[in-house]
Amino acid sequence: MKENTPGAGSPVLPVAPTRGRLRPLGLDEVRITGGFWAGRRAVNATATLGHCRDWMERVGWIGNFRAAAEGRVHHDRRGREFADSDVYKLLEAMAWEAGHGGDPALDAEITALSDTIAAAQEPDGYLNTAFGRPGRPPRYSDLAWGHELYCAGHLIQAGVARTRARGEGELAKTARRAADHVCATFGPGGIEGVCGHPEIETALVELARATGEQRYLDQAALFVDRRGHGTLPDIEFGRAYYQDDLPVRDATVLRGHAVRALYLAAGAVDVAVETGDEDLLAAVVRQWEATVARRTHLTGGMGSHHRDESFGDDFVLPPDRAYSETCAGVASVMLGWRLLLATGEPRFADLAERTLFNVVAASPSEDGRAFFYANTLHRRRRGTVPPADAESPRAESGLRAPWFAVSCCPTNVARTLALLPAYLATADDHGVQLHQYADAEIATHLTGGHGVALRVRTDYPSGGSVTVRVGRSPDHPWTLSLRVPAWTEGATAWLVDPDGGRRAVAPGTAALTRLFRPGDEIRLELPVAPRWIAPDPRVDAVRGTVAVQRGPLVYCAESVDLPGGHEVDAVRVDPSVEPEDGPDDTVVAPGELAGPGGPPDAVWPYRPLDRVAAPAAERTGVVLVPYHSWANRGPSTMRVWLPTAEPRTTPPGR
Amino acid sequence: MKENTPGAGSPVLPVAPTRGRLRPLGLDEVRITGGFWAGRRAVNATATLGHCRDWMERVGWIGNFRAAAEGRVHHDRRGREFADSDVYKLLEAMAWEAGHGGDPALDAEITALSDTIAAAQEPDGYLNTAFGRPGRPPRYSDLAWGHELYCAGHLIQAGVARTRARGEGELAKTARRAADHVCATFGPGGIEGVCGHPEIETALVELARATGEQRYLDQAALFVDRRGHGTLPDIEFGRAYYQDDLPVRDATVLRGHAVRALYLAAGAVDVAVETGDEDLLAAVVRQWEATVARRTHLTGGMGSHHRDESFGDDFVLPPDRAYSETCAGVASVMLGWRLLLATGEPRFADLAERTLFNVVAASPSEDGRAFFYANTLHRRRRGTVPPADAESPRAESGLRAPWFAVSCCPTNVARTLALLPAYLATADDHGVQLHQYADAEIATHLTGGHGVALRVRTDYPSGGSVTVRVGRSPDHPWTLSLRVPAWTEGATAWLVDPDGGRRAVAPGTAALTRLFRPGDEIRLELPVAPRWIAPDPRVDAVRGTVAVQRGPLVYCAESVDLPGGHEVDAVRVDPSVEPEDGPDDTVVAPGELAGPGGPPDAVWPYRPLDRVAAPAAERTGVVLVPYHSWANRGPSTMRVWLPTAEPRTTPPGR
Repeated sequence: MKENTPGAGSPVLPVAPTRGRLRPLGLDEVRITGGFWAGRRAVNATATLGHCRDWMERVGWIGNFRAAAEGRVHHDRRGREFADSDVYKLLEAMAWEAGHGGDPALDAEITALSDTIAAAQEPDGYLNTAFGRPGRPPRYSDLAWGHELYCAGHLIQAGVARTRARGEGELAKTARRAADHVCATFGPGGIEGVCGHPEIETALVELARATGEQRYLDQAALFVDRRGHGTLPDIEFGRAYYQDDLPVRDATVLRGHAVRALYLAAGAVDVAVETGDEDLLAAVVRQWEATVARRTHLTGGMGSHHRDESFGDDFVLPPDRAYSETCAGVASVMLGWRLLLATGEPRFADLAERTLFNVVAASPSEDGRAFFYANTLHRRRRGTVPPADAESPRAESGLRAPWFAVSCCPTNVARTLALLPAYLATADDHGVQLHQYADAEIATHLTGGHGVALRVRTDYPSGGSVTVRVGRSPDHPWTLSLRVPAWTEGATAWLVDPDGGRRAVAPGTAALTRLFRPGDEIRLELPVAPRWIAPDPRVDAVRGTVAVQRGPLVYCAESVDLPGGHEVDAVRVDPSVEPEDGPDDTVVAPGELAGPGGPPDAVWPYRPLDRVAAPAAERTGVVLVPYHSWANRGPSTMRVWLPTAEPRTTPPGR
Repeated sequence: MKENTPGAGSPVLPVAPTRGRLRPLGLDEVRITGGFWAGRRAVNATATLGHCRDWMERVGWIGNFRAAAEGRVHHDRRGREFADSDVYKLLEAMAWEAGHGGDPALDAEITALSDTIAAAQEPDGYLNTAFGRPGRPPRYSDLAWGHELYCAGHLIQAGVARTRARGEGELAKTARRAADHVCATFGPGGIEGVCGHPEIETALVELARATGEQRYLDQAALFVDRRGHGTLPDIEFGRAYYQDDLPVRDATVLRGHAVRALYLAAGAVDVAVETGDEDLLAAVVRQWEATVARRTHLTGGMGSHHRDESFGDDFVLPPDRAYSETCAGVASVMLGWRLLLATGEPRFADLAERTLFNVVAASPSEDGRAFFYANTLHRRRRGTVPPADAESPRAESGLRAPWFAVSCCPTNVARTLALLPAYLATADDHGVQLHQYADAEIATHLTGGHGVALRVRTDYPSGGSVTVRVGRSPDHPWTLSLRVPAWTEGATAWLVDPDGGRRAVAPGTAALTRLFRPGDEIRLELPVAPRWIAPDPRVDAVRGTVAVQRGPLVYCAESVDLPGGHEVDAVRVDPSVEPEDGPDDTVVAPGELAGPGGPPDAVWPYRPLDRVAAPAAERTGVVLVPYHSWANRGPSTMRVWLPTAEPRTTPPGR
């Protein structure tokens, strides 16, 4: 791996590897100016951040810090053992958001919240409202489930975010003291344990990057290496639940609790990059490949089991019980970004795009004040409206809920949307790479300090035309690289150079090297016509069905769009005819609405094959909507994978 | 409902309703003499009972009673809060087993174990080793999860079993004292609560039947009526988990934790029958119908969710994540038996047969010393051999395990096999009804005390020929009724009368009324050729697959029978050709062994439909074995629902 040569100044970088194939750009170098993500980010800034803060005041999670500082946490602590972490994730989100520009009110809020947290820190740097104080369980008495290092990790991430965006302040100092305590306690000669929930690993590496202090990196490497040796207790889910079954370097696929697995993998990449450990990096890449090929939903969602929020066995991907936790989507994007920076391979950006549009964007409601915790691909029953003033069960709401008893997802969405512009582009010695498409302004420096400014205009993801206009450019040739998404497989994408030259480009990377002039326009034309998608036959749960994807967007049928009060389970589609664009980003798929699907008086749902008759059905065009937009129009049923109308079996000839 | 007129003497009845359409026969009236169930019952008597006793000594669950009696349960209690109940279930199993005949050693063991339990009972009748004593949580301090009334229910059932089989003794007295305590504590003016796990209801009704004491019935009715009014706490799974979401009379389908739901339904039928409450009975029948039509696996197994061991939504029946807990199978048979006695309708015996052969018989290993807790319909990975000397996680073992940390299933299988002969036949004013087929001797009395003796000979379930030979018969006409299983749908079953007259009979009941003479033989010919079974299209998880059933037995493909080291996921079958009988109760299905099912280097398991190519495959006959027999030949993969070889989708025409 080569060393990064950062651009001039000190960019506001969510992830700042000192080595790797690509150099990330900071939030001060990339600005999203319009379109899909600008809308989502505006809602995040103006609604979601305040919503999370208000709820955490209401349910007492912020109050826990006050109670700790005032010595009354024994009686007054509220929420689960990991509640502190959501306050930290909110702070991180606010810090990135404030990093984009000057909102004095937001800065004041960050300062006040940072002070509240700092007041609860103990003299030796330990900070957790659930453990260690009089009347609470002792520190580190429950590494498996206590989430103490997990919480410390999120505190550190918040501190790093604030430092990068505004320079060191109270929050950064609190975070460093907490990190020093962790190193002192879990370093060589200390407790030889790991946290039941990975997260501290990636946080410590980022702190090492932000401070230049090697010992944080060493501690992160120690945590990565320690895991997988069975120091955590065996539990009913098995030690794979918290990845303590196998050392990271020996594992071949992600397994166990999806968020835990993905955070650990992200931390392992960070360690591998900083230490130049190619074997460790290769191990994570191998696990990522196997996981993507066999354990990932069409939406990019990860996690098949409700029971333990875990990956299932290979190809266990039930749409109606997909867990696909929002936080696992966030974590997958985090991992993909690290792998992209390390390797430069567009496949990592492909999955990140899929996950951003179809998991991360699916979680929040249009108003940014309600969330899906789990992102099912098939909802069979119309849900009831979750209570507006009470916490909802995490995985059961048929509609987005304002808050959960376990409410990791809203703040994780918030911090992801806040730092999203950083995921759009990178630079290297040869030029600039665009990975995600949105209306944006990019201004950075190439090697040697030569300034480059680009303006991106696109109707993505509704349309597939991306125009990059050069604003400033060095007076020597450089390379503009554009990701050609893997979803264009089998269709033709075109790259149009500033002179109008037009060439077909295949999925991967389209690169154009030349002496660019200000005013030059480069265009990428991606074919976003809706297409039928078929599953690998090993994905048993969706056999005999197809889905529709249009550009990067996965589509779904939603009952509110069906005539006659039909539920989605009445839909059958005809994949011998192509789906077509409908109005307002809808797709119309040829198909039929079946009767209830079987004799209404069926007493038993299994019959001799020769007794089965095809149900009556009426031909229709089935309106499909982007998956991320579902459940914004009241209780509904929904499905992504649509059964085909053809007879699926031929009765024995008699 | 009409009153039962019991046969002469006092039959050893597992369930003894005083009213209902059919009168049960006792274990002293029906004897299984050979065939499938005789083998299973012999293993149960000679291996499983001792295995359960040894394990419960080893893991300390029997020792808990000694610890309680000796005042050291505070330090020494072992196992989960409901561990007492498994000792009681074992005692119940032993009591029924001893009820069949004289094994002095078994009787002595029952007496000794009964004494151990009695010594732990508190002066006021309360008996639970987990609660109430110094250092333990207070009595009834956790109705939701404490299982105190659940344990009391199993104690009462054991006491009733012992009383019916041998007359009142120590165990019966202990049980009655416990029941009196329950009535005093939870009766009018007492705690207005219910147990988080139903079970006490059916136990108290049985105790009322055994003792003639109305107050036990009243208390059971009170518990049934109290449930569904939200007296238990709301939890993440919702109050439906323990059926406290809706009153029993208002519910339309079974929901929540499957065993809880089925035990409650059984208790509600008991109450309904004894109090003549036709509305309550109709409510349970309605729930049973909806549950069987929409929430039951092909095996008869119930429960779709691992997370909360619960029923899923309608038609959520994933084979690879089928929970299908053994105890839910036992409970479903218990419920079906009560509904059959109350209504006389053969559909209840149909489901019981399916469940007995494909769930209850699937749980124990051939040697009766290992068990499935969950009964999946699709195993994708070869399991590892569970430890011989440690408790296994309840739902994860790929092979049967000797014992579980939650080990309700082994003792539930044991008590079911011990009382199984009682499920074979009933009587009423008109004659005798045969519901389940096995080699058996039946001797009972018809109305008026007229003796009837029948001998049943059959090769069931391998074959479908059932011969009933009359040994003794009144000198007036009576009716012999034979269940014609619902699985004969579309094929022809024949009834052959003693004169050789042969008539086709439809699924339901075949009845023959005549003046029977000793030596008369009546024959039922059931067509057991293997048949393809197709699922209702609403069962999404098995779309595009078929299964094979042969007689009452569900079949499966198991990797040990496949050539070339193939796993079952390589199997595709051709349902246009009938499956055929193979040797040793196997079935050979026409099909093919596919390659790995997709490109081995697939990087993403979803592709544009027009890019999908059919995998290469080789034609073969696929050997299938009875589902209940799987996993007796070492680690294997297995599946019941087999994908069809036909192309499932047609690419768009281009």
